[in-house]
Amino acid sequence: MSLQGAYDDTNIFARIIRGEIPSVPIFEDDDVLAFMDAFPQSRGHCLMISKTSRARNILDVEPEVLAVLSAAVQRLARAVRKALVPDGIVVTQFNGAPAGQTVFHLHIHVIPRWEGQTLGRHAGGMADIAELKSTADMIRAALD
Amino acid sequence: MSLQGAYDDTNIFARIIRGEIPSVPIFEDDDVLAFMDAFPQSRGHCLMISKTSRARNILDVEPEVLAVLSAAVQRLARAVRKALVPDGIVVTQFNGAPAGQTVFHLHIHVIPRWEGQTLGRHAGGMADIAELKSTADMIRAALD
Repeated sequence: MSLQGAYDDTNIFARIIRGEIPSVPIFEDDDVLAFMDAFPQSRGHCLMISKTSRARNILDVEPEVLAVLSAAVQRLARAVRKALVPDGIVVTQFNGAPAGQTVFHLHIHVIPRWEGQTLGRHAGGMADIAELKSTADMIRAALD
Repeated sequence: MSLQGAYDDTNIFARIIRGEIPSVPIFEDDDVLAFMDAFPQSRGHCLMISKTSRARNILDVEPEVLAVLSAAVQRLARAVRKALVPDGIVVTQFNGAPAGQTVFHLHIHVIPRWEGQTLGRHAGGMADIAELKSTADMIRAALD
């Protein structure tokens, strides 16, 4: 899918928001949901999405939703740093399949990095759910 | 440099803001500066920075600065789409050297992607300045 096109209600994140598919949540409120990436590129790889917007990407999204998401991403990144003490953190967001986007509901990746550890390939393999839950608990406990 | 440490006023983006080093600007106002990445990973690779904040990364940055930056990044990404018609756009932001950060003034990359074209290595080679200026002109003309 290119940068054009309509929002598809059956995308996996829309289904997670509706509770039709399980996820490993870190936190949520009326506006946003943070949850663990099920195909992590590193330990602690998590995602932030809007629960209210039907934006596919940063080009589509309502400015007020983007403001809320950006603040939530900062809060999440700070909790990841506190909980997991990585050497670095990548914050990234893909628009369109040729940019690496695989789910067409706007989402922002927060990916901890450790010195000397290369990133796994995204979608390289599904994570162990118990391990994801344990990591999510650690990040949740570190939230301001 | 890790995620810890103080802001260093001699970083290259601080020097660009002060006009001590040339850049190829796209637009600026009192708050932000958008300019071409001199070591682009693709045609149109550009950067957004705050002119007022001494934040090294997303962990440090004042929430009000992050809100302004995020809105400016959306405006820039939309102009890149309109001007260059890429198939996708990556928006990314590195925190700490192990995450790929090389300049320790918070900056957000906007990187157009085209189907079938792999990304160049960042800092793989300095771009032709005339070509950067021509691309910057196109993006500037497409700003809302």
